[in-house]
Amino acid sequence: MAIRRHPRSFLPKAFAEVDLQRRHRLGAPEIIFGAGKTVPQIMAIARKLWSAKQPVLVTRVDANKGQLLTRAFPRGSYHSRARIFTLGKFRAKDSRQMLVAVCAAGTSDYPVAEEALVTLEFLGHRPTRFYDIGVAGLHRTFRRLPEISNHQALIVVAGMEAALPSVLGGLVPHPLVAVPTSVGYGAHLQGLTAFLGMLNSCAPGITVVNIDNGFGAAYAIHRLSLGLPS
Amino acid sequence: MAIRRHPRSFLPKAFAEVDLQRRHRLGAPEIIFGAGKTVPQIMAIARKLWSAKQPVLVTRVDANKGQLLTRAFPRGSYHSRARIFTLGKFRAKDSRQMLVAVCAAGTSDYPVAEEALVTLEFLGHRPTRFYDIGVAGLHRTFRRLPEISNHQALIVVAGMEAALPSVLGGLVPHPLVAVPTSVGYGAHLQGLTAFLGMLNSCAPGITVVNIDNGFGAAYAIHRLSLGLPS
Amino acid sequence: MAIRRHPRSFLPKAFAEVDLQRRHRLGAPEIIFGAGKTVPQIMAIARKLWSAKQPVLVTRVDANKGQLLTRAFPRGSYHSRARIFTLGKFRAKDSRQMLVAVCAAGTSDYPVAEEALVTLEFLGHRPTRFYDIGVAGLHRTFRRLPEISNHQALIVVAGMEAALPSVLGGLVPHPLVAVPTSVGYGAHLQGLTAFLGMLNSCAPGITVVNIDNGFGAAYAIHRLSLGLPS
Amino acid sequence: MAIRRHPRSFLPKAFAEVDLQRRHRLGAPEIIFGAGKTVPQIMAIARKLWSAKQPVLVTRVDANKGQLLTRAFPRGSYHSRARIFTLGKFRAKDSRQMLVAVCAAGTSDYPVAEEALVTLEFLGHRPTRFYDIGVAGLHRTFRRLPEISNHQALIVVAGMEAALPSVLGGLVPHPLVAVPTSVGYGAHLQGLTAFLGMLNSCAPGITVVNIDNGFGAAYAIHRLSLGLPS
Amino acid sequence: MAIRRHPRSFLPKAFAEVDLQRRHRLGAPEIIFGAGKTVPQIMAIARKLWSAKQPVLVTRVDANKGQLLTRAFPRGSYHSRARIFTLGKFRAKDSRQMLVAVCAAGTSDYPVAEEALVTLEFLGHRPTRFYDIGVAGLHRTFRRLPEISNHQALIVVAGMEAALPSVLGGLVPHPLVAVPTSVGYGAHLQGLTAFLGMLNSCAPGITVVNIDNGFGAAYAIHRLSLGLPS
Amino acid sequence: MAIRRHPRSFLPKAFAEVDLQRRHRLGAPEIIFGAGKTVPQIMAIARKLWSAKQPVLVTRVDANKGQLLTRAFPRGSYHSRARIFTLGKFRAKDSRQMLVAVCAAGTSDYPVAEEALVTLEFLGHRPTRFYDIGVAGLHRTFRRLPEISNHQALIVVAGMEAALPSVLGGLVPHPLVAVPTSVGYGAHLQGLTAFLGMLNSCAPGITVVNIDNGFGAAYAIHRLSLGLPS
Amino acid sequence: MAIRRHPRSFLPKAFAEVDLQRRHRLGAPEIIFGAGKTVPQIMAIARKLWSAKQPVLVTRVDANKGQLLTRAFPRGSYHSRARIFTLGKFRAKDSRQMLVAVCAAGTSDYPVAEEALVTLEFLGHRPTRFYDIGVAGLHRTFRRLPEISNHQALIVVAGMEAALPSVLGGLVPHPLVAVPTSVGYGAHLQGLTAFLGMLNSCAPGITVVNIDNGFGAAYAIHRLSLGLPS
Amino acid sequence: MAIRRHPRSFLPKAFAEVDLQRRHRLGAPEIIFGAGKTVPQIMAIARKLWSAKQPVLVTRVDANKGQLLTRAFPRGSYHSRARIFTLGKFRAKDSRQMLVAVCAAGTSDYPVAEEALVTLEFLGHRPTRFYDIGVAGLHRTFRRLPEISNHQALIVVAGMEAALPSVLGGLVPHPLVAVPTSVGYGAHLQGLTAFLGMLNSCAPGITVVNIDNGFGAAYAIHRLSLGLPS
Repeated sequence: MAIRRHPRSFLPKAFAEVDLQRRHRLGAPEIIFGAGKTVPQIMAIARKLWSAKQPVLVTRVDANKGQLLTRAFPRGSYHSRARIFTLGKFRAKDSRQMLVAVCAAGTSDYPVAEEALVTLEFLGHRPTRFYDIGVAGLHRTFRRLPEISNHQALIVVAGMEAALPSVLGGLVPHPLVAVPTSVGYGAHLQGLTAFLGMLNSCAPGITVVNIDNGFGAAYAIHRLSLGLPS
Repeated sequence: MAIRRHPRSFLPKAFAEVDLQRRHRLGAPEIIFGAGKTVPQIMAIARKLWSAKQPVLVTRVDANKGQLLTRAFPRGSYHSRARIFTLGKFRAKDSRQMLVAVCAAGTSDYPVAEEALVTLEFLGHRPTRFYDIGVAGLHRTFRRLPEISNHQALIVVAGMEAALPSVLGGLVPHPLVAVPTSVGYGAHLQGLTAFLGMLNSCAPGITVVNIDNGFGAAYAIHRLSLGLPS
Repeated sequence: MAIRRHPRSFLPKAFAEVDLQRRHRLGAPEIIFGAGKTVPQIMAIARKLWSAKQPVLVTRVDANKGQLLTRAFPRGSYHSRARIFTLGKFRAKDSRQMLVAVCAAGTSDYPVAEEALVTLEFLGHRPTRFYDIGVAGLHRTFRRLPEISNHQALIVVAGMEAALPSVLGGLVPHPLVAVPTSVGYGAHLQGLTAFLGMLNSCAPGITVVNIDNGFGAAYAIHRLSLGLPS
Repeated sequence: MAIRRHPRSFLPKAFAEVDLQRRHRLGAPEIIFGAGKTVPQIMAIARKLWSAKQPVLVTRVDANKGQLLTRAFPRGSYHSRARIFTLGKFRAKDSRQMLVAVCAAGTSDYPVAEEALVTLEFLGHRPTRFYDIGVAGLHRTFRRLPEISNHQALIVVAGMEAALPSVLGGLVPHPLVAVPTSVGYGAHLQGLTAFLGMLNSCAPGITVVNIDNGFGAAYAIHRLSLGLPS
Repeated sequence: MAIRRHPRSFLPKAFAEVDLQRRHRLGAPEIIFGAGKTVPQIMAIARKLWSAKQPVLVTRVDANKGQLLTRAFPRGSYHSRARIFTLGKFRAKDSRQMLVAVCAAGTSDYPVAEEALVTLEFLGHRPTRFYDIGVAGLHRTFRRLPEISNHQALIVVAGMEAALPSVLGGLVPHPLVAVPTSVGYGAHLQGLTAFLGMLNSCAPGITVVNIDNGFGAAYAIHRLSLGLPS
Repeated sequence: MAIRRHPRSFLPKAFAEVDLQRRHRLGAPEIIFGAGKTVPQIMAIARKLWSAKQPVLVTRVDANKGQLLTRAFPRGSYHSRARIFTLGKFRAKDSRQMLVAVCAAGTSDYPVAEEALVTLEFLGHRPTRFYDIGVAGLHRTFRRLPEISNHQALIVVAGMEAALPSVLGGLVPHPLVAVPTSVGYGAHLQGLTAFLGMLNSCAPGITVVNIDNGFGAAYAIHRLSLGLPS
Repeated sequence: MAIRRHPRSFLPKAFAEVDLQRRHRLGAPEIIFGAGKTVPQIMAIARKLWSAKQPVLVTRVDANKGQLLTRAFPRGSYHSRARIFTLGKFRAKDSRQMLVAVCAAGTSDYPVAEEALVTLEFLGHRPTRFYDIGVAGLHRTFRRLPEISNHQALIVVAGMEAALPSVLGGLVPHPLVAVPTSVGYGAHLQGLTAFLGMLNSCAPGITVVNIDNGFGAAYAIHRLSLGLPS
Repeated sequence: MAIRRHPRSFLPKAFAEVDLQRRHRLGAPEIIFGAGKTVPQIMAIARKLWSAKQPVLVTRVDANKGQLLTRAFPRGSYHSRARIFTLGKFRAKDSRQMLVAVCAAGTSDYPVAEEALVTLEFLGHRPTRFYDIGVAGLHRTFRRLPEISNHQALIVVAGMEAALPSVLGGLVPHPLVAVPTSVGYGAHLQGLTAFLGMLNSCAPGITVVNIDNGFGAAYAIHRLSLGLPS
C-alpha cells in the first residue's frame, strides 16, 4: 500500500517563486492571497518576505488560520474583522501618505471596508471610517459629507443596488474607487447586481474593483500616491 | 403556381377574441400591445372595442403605424413621444382620480416616462412630469421634492444604475413603482442592470415592472384606485 | 502574540446610525434586516429603537437567533415560520388599515408568504391567508376567488413558473404585488425563472419585488395606505 | 485579379448528402431547415427528395425565398404565415392520423403556431386552431376547453410568462408539447423567460421544445403516432 | 418569553387542499413533491390520499425521510436509488400500458433514470433499463438498439454534452423524452449545458423536461397513454 | 386627424435642467452623452452651457450628427475617430495637468482609446498614444515600456481576453484605469469577457470602468488631479 | 467650421506595429483579423508584410472588402465562402505538412469549415472536406469514418447541440479540435450551446476554440506540426 | 416495513458496460471519472479493467476514497494532490513519448496542474513542472522560457484573468492546451472568466478544455502522439 504524497523536495521549489523585487517594481511588497493556501504555505512565503526585510500582509485569513499565524509570528497581528494578518508595516514617504475616506453603505459591508482600511494602514496611508451612510437615509450621508470631502480620495463599499457611489460621486470631485459587495438577497446574484450598478453609474469617472475586493481598492489608492510626482 | 396565403375567412375568427368584458372585470378596457401586430390587425381590434363603446389605447406604435392609424381613425390621437395611439378616453369616477408624479432620471428615459404619462391620462388620472432629476445632480432632485411629495403615488423611470428610486423611496412614503429602462452603454445589458438595481433597492416597499414598461407602471397605479374602497 | 480585535469603542459609533426619523419620514420605523447581523448587533439596534419608543421588526431571523432574542426581550415574539422577531407593534390609524389577501401557490411558498403576513400585521394591517391555490388545480383557485376579491390588495407568492399572479391579475382589478420564490428544481435558477415570469405577466399592472422578499411586498402595501389621502 | 469562388464541382458533392433513408428510419422524409440556406441550395436538396418520390417541407422560408421557390416548383405551395414551403404531402396511414389542438396564447404567437399546424398537415395529421386564448382572459380559455379536450394531443404556443401550458396541463390529461416564443418586451430575453417558465411548470408531464420551434412540436406529435402499435 | 409558533389550528386548513379530483381530471392521483416538505407534512398529505383510496407517490425523498415514512406506512416501499416512496400502485387499463425504454448515458445519470423508472411502474407501465450506453462508446449504444426499438417510447437521460438523445432520436422514430442531468464538472452549469444541447438537438421531434426531472419524463409518457383513444 | 406632438412649450422646461453648478462641485462642466439624444436636444443643452461660459464636450456623436453640430457651432470641432464634439476647452491649473499614457492593445480598440484621449485633452491634460502593443507581441509592449513609465497615470484599453492591463499593471506602479472593449468574436459577449478578465486581474490595484467607456477612464484620471492637494 | 479628422501623420505611426518577427517566433506570419478594420487599414498592413516578403492572410473579409482587396492586389485571391483574402502562401517544410480531415455537421457550418480549410492550405497543410455528416444521420458519419481516420488530425465544426465531436472523438484516437458555430435557432445562444456541449464532451481529450473560429482551429493544427521534432 | 433497495442482481448488469475495447480504438484504456461514483462502483470497474490486463486511472478521488482504494488495491498509488488513483501504467511506444511543459500561473492552480501531470505520466509521457510563473511577475515567466521552449507541447493552467496562455502562446510556437481554473474571488464566476479569456486569446491557435479539467488537457496531448505518424 502506497499513499504517495508529493515529496517534500517538490514543495520548496514550487514555492520559491516569491516576488521579492515587487517592492521596487511596484512600490509595495508582494501581498499573500490567503484564501486558497494552507497555513504552512502562507508561513513559507511569509518567512521568505520577512527574512528579506519586507513586511507581510495576508488577505482572506479566517479566524482559525489567524490564530495559527499569530502563534507562528508573535510579532504579527490578526485583524479579525478585516480577515487580514500583518507582520510589520510598509513605510511610505510622508509626502505620499494619502488621507482616505472609507465609506460603507450598510452593516454587512463592514468586513470588506475593513479589508480596505487595514490594507491602507499597512501601506502607510491614513484612512477614516464612514460607515452606515447608505442612501436609504440620505440625511446620514449628508451629515458626514463635509468631513468626507476633507480627504484626498474615497473608497465606497456598497452592496444591494449600490447607489451610494453614484450619490457621492455626484457630490464630490475626488478620486473614487467603488467596491461592490456580495450582500443582499434574492436577485443580487452574489454581488453582480451591485457591481453592474457601479459600472453604470451616472456620476462620471468612478472606477470599480472586483466584488468584495477591499484589498484591491486600497491598493488602487496606493498607486495614486506612487504614480504622481512626489 | 400557388402562393397560398391564409384565407380571409381565417383571420376574423382568430381575431374575434377581443376581451370586451375586461372593462367590467379589471376596471379598464383591453389595451392593444402594438409591437407585434400589423396595422390591419390593430385596426380590426380597435374597431371591435370602439363599436362596443370602449375607448382604445395602443402601445408601441412607431411613427409610421401612427400615421396610418390617425388616417384610419380621424378622431384618434397619436402621441409620438410615448409611441401611443388613443381613441377616446376612459372615464374614471372623480373620487378615484390619482395624482401621480412621473419622475425620469435622464433625457433618454423620456419615451418610457411619456408612455406611463399618456396611459395615466387615458385611464383618467392626473400625472405631472418631473424629468431630468437623476442623482448625478442631487440638488435638482431635492429642489423638486416638496412638489413630488404633493402627489399620491410615484412612477420613477431610470436607466443606468437606477439609483433614483432608492433615493426617492428613502425620502417619501408614497407608493412607488420603478420602471427600469434599457438606456446606457457597456454592461447595462439592455436594462437588466437598472432592473436588478431596482429590485435590490435598500429603500423598503419599492415595486418594479418590466424593462421599458411605462404602460405597466401606469396600470399598476390604476389598480391602486380600483382596489381601494371608493 | 496579539489577536487585535476591533476595540469596543469602534463598534458603538459605527452602530449609532439607527434611522430614528424614518418613522416620520416614511411612515414606519426602521426595519432590521437580520440575515447579515450577529445577535449582539441586532440587540444593539433593537434597544436603540425600543428606547426611542419605536416598535421593532427583525427579518431573516433563524431559529437559533430567535431563541436568543426572545430571551433578551421577553416581551417580544419570535414567529418561527416567518423567521421574524417582533417587539411591540406599529399603530396605524384605523382609516388606513388595509385588508390584504396573501396568496401562496404551493407548500414551499409558505415561509415567504408568512414573512409578508407577519410584517403586515406588525404594520397594523389585516391580512388573510389563501394558501395552496396554485394553477395546477385551478378549481381550488376559483373556489377562493370571491373571498379574495373581498380584500383591498393582493400579495401573490409563487415559485416554479409563477403562473398564479397572471391568472389572478387577469381576474381581479386590485393592486397586486407578486413575490417570486426560490422554490423548484432544475432550471428554476434560484427564483429567477419565477421572477422573470412575473415581470412578463400578460395581466396588466402587476408589480414585482425581489425573490423571496415577503417583507418588501408587505411594505409596498403599507405604502398604499400612506400615499393616499386619509 | 482572381475572385476565386468555390468551383461548381465542389457544391454537388457536399450537397449530395440528402438523407433519403430517413423516411424509412424515422417515418418521415428529411425536412429542410431553410434559414441558413440560399435558394439554390434549397432547390438542389428539394429536387433530390422530389426525384426520389419524397414530399418536401422547407421551414423558415421568408417571403422572398417563398416566391422564388413557388416559381421554381409550380406544384408547391408557400404558406406565408407559417413561413413554410411544401411540395407534395406525406401520406400517413389513417389509423395513425392524430387529431391535434394547436393552442396559441396571443396574436404574436401565431406564426409559430402556424408553423406547427402546416407541418402537422404535411405529415398527414388533422390540427385545429385555438388562438388568442391566453390566461389574461381565462373565460376565453375555458370556453374552448371542451372542444380542446376532444383532441388526442395539444401543442401550446406561448410567449411572455407562458402560463397557458400550466393552466391547460392542469385541466386535461392529454400529451402536451409546449413551444415558447420569443415574444414580449423587456426582460423576456428572446424567449428564455417563456421557455424557463414552461420547464418549471407545476402541471405534471409537460414537455418543451426549443424557442419558436413550431416544427419541432409538430414532429414530436408525429412521433407519437409512430412509436405506438398501429 | 414567548416563542409563538404557528398554532396547530392553522396547519390543517392550509394543508387541506389536497387535489383529490386530479385522478379523474388528469388520469393520475396527485403526486407529492417531497423536497421542500417535512415528514409530518408529507404524512398528512399521504394519509389524505390513502384514505380517499388513492395510491401515493412521493418524489425527492432522502434516505432519512424514507426510513421515517416506511416506519409510518409499513405497507409502503422506499426506493432508495430513485429517492421515491410509494404506497400502493395506480392501476391503468392494460390496453394503455406503455412499454418504455429508459436509457441512461452514464453512471451518474442513474438516480434520475431510476426516478423515471419507478414512476412509470407506479403509473402502471412497463419500463426497461438501458444504462451506460453513452456515445463515448457508440458500439455499446448500437448493441442495444434493436432491443430499444422494441419499445413504444424512449426516455433518454444524459448529462455532460447530452449527445445520446440526438443519436437515438436520429435512429428510431419513437416518441423520445430527453432528461438533462446536472452531472459533469467545469462549465456544465448545473445541467444547463445538457439541457441546452437537448433543446438544440438536430434530431427532429425530441422533447425535453426540466433538469433531473425523471418524474416529469415518466408522467409525459403516461400522458401518451391517456390522450390517445383506447 | 390629429398627430399630437409634444407641444414646444413642454420641451424647454424638461430640458432646462442643465447642471451648471457641476463645474464648481465636480471640477468639470457637465458632459453631454450624445448617444440617446437628437441633434436639436444636444444643441439646446450645448447652448445653455456655452452661454454660461462653460466649454462643451459631447460623446458618442456619429459622423452625421457631427456634421450637423459643426455646422451649428462653427467654432467647435468634431473628432471623428473619437466620435466626440467639443466646443472650447476646460482650463485646468497647470499644476494639476496630468501626463497620461493611453495604451491600446489592438487596432479595433482605437476608437475607445481616442475617446479617452480627446476627453483628456478637453479637460486640460496631456495624453500620449501607445497603440497596438497587445501581448500577442510582447516585444512591442516592452519596447515602449520606458516611455510609458515616464507618465503619471495609465489608461489601458483592450478587448478579447484583455491581458494587457495585467501585464502592464505587474510592471509599473502607476495608477492604471482599464477599459474593456466590445471587440472580438465568438464568446466575447460584447465585451463582458474583457471586462471580467480585467476585474480578475492578478496585478494589484487595477480599476475598471464600463465597457467601451473611454470617457469614463479619462474622467477618472481627471479626478486624480482634483482630489489631491494642489 | 472644422471637422478635424485624425491627421494623416497619426495613422502611419499607430499602424507601423506590424509584427514582422512573428514568422520566426511563432512559425507563421502575422494574420490580419479583417472584421474590425477598414480596407485602407488592411491594405497598409498587407503591404508591410508583403514588402517584407511574407505571405498575407486576412480573415473575416466580406464580399465588398474582398472585391476591393483583389483590385488592389491582383495577385491575391478572395475565397468568398471562407471570407478570406490571401496573397502568396506560406511554405512549410514537407516533413511537417499535416493531413487534416475538416468535418462539418450541417450546411450552415460550411463557412466556418471553409475558413479552417483555406487557412490550412495557406499554412502549407493538406485538408480534406467531410461535410454534412451530422449525427442526425449517423450512417453518413460512419460511411466516411475509414477515410477520416486516414488523416493525422481532425477539425470538427458543428452548431446546434454539437454532438459530432463527441461521436468522432469516441471513435478515433486523433488530435481533435472542435469549433462551435453560431448556427441554430431558439436557445442556441449565438453558439454558446454548441460551445458548452463541446467542452463537456464525454469523449476524452477534445479541445475547443472560440465560436465560429475556423482560423483558430487551423492554426492550432499548425502548431502541432511546429512543436513536434521534425 | 420494506426498504426495497435495488437488488444486487441489478447492479452487475448495469455496471458491466466497461469499454474494454477503448484501448485499441482510442489508444488508451477507459478512464474512471471518480467524482459521481461510490468506492464499490469504482472498485468494480477497476477490477474489470485490471483483470483484462489494462492499467487503471481514476480521477477526482478525494482523500477518503483514496485511502479505501489503496487499501483495496495495495499495488496502486494515490496521488493526493492530483486527486488521482492509479494502478499500473500505460506503456506507450518510446517514439511517441511527449515532452510536456506543465505551466501553472499561481499556487491555487496546482491541483489542476498536478491532475494533468499525473495523467501524462500514467499515459507514458514526460511532463515537467513550471509553477508560479503568472504574469503578475513577468520576469519569472521569462526566466523559465528557454527551458519551457525545450518541450514538445505546453499545458497552461491559469485562473483569474488567465493571461498566461496568451503571453506564452505569443512567445512560443508549440501546441498549447489551456486549462481554466475555478480560482479567484468576486466575479470569477467559478472559472468562466478564465475560460472566456482563454477562448478569446489574442495568441493564435490556442485550444481550451473544460474548467479544472487537467485530465482532459493531458489526454489532448496524448492524442497528439497517436494521430501523428510514428
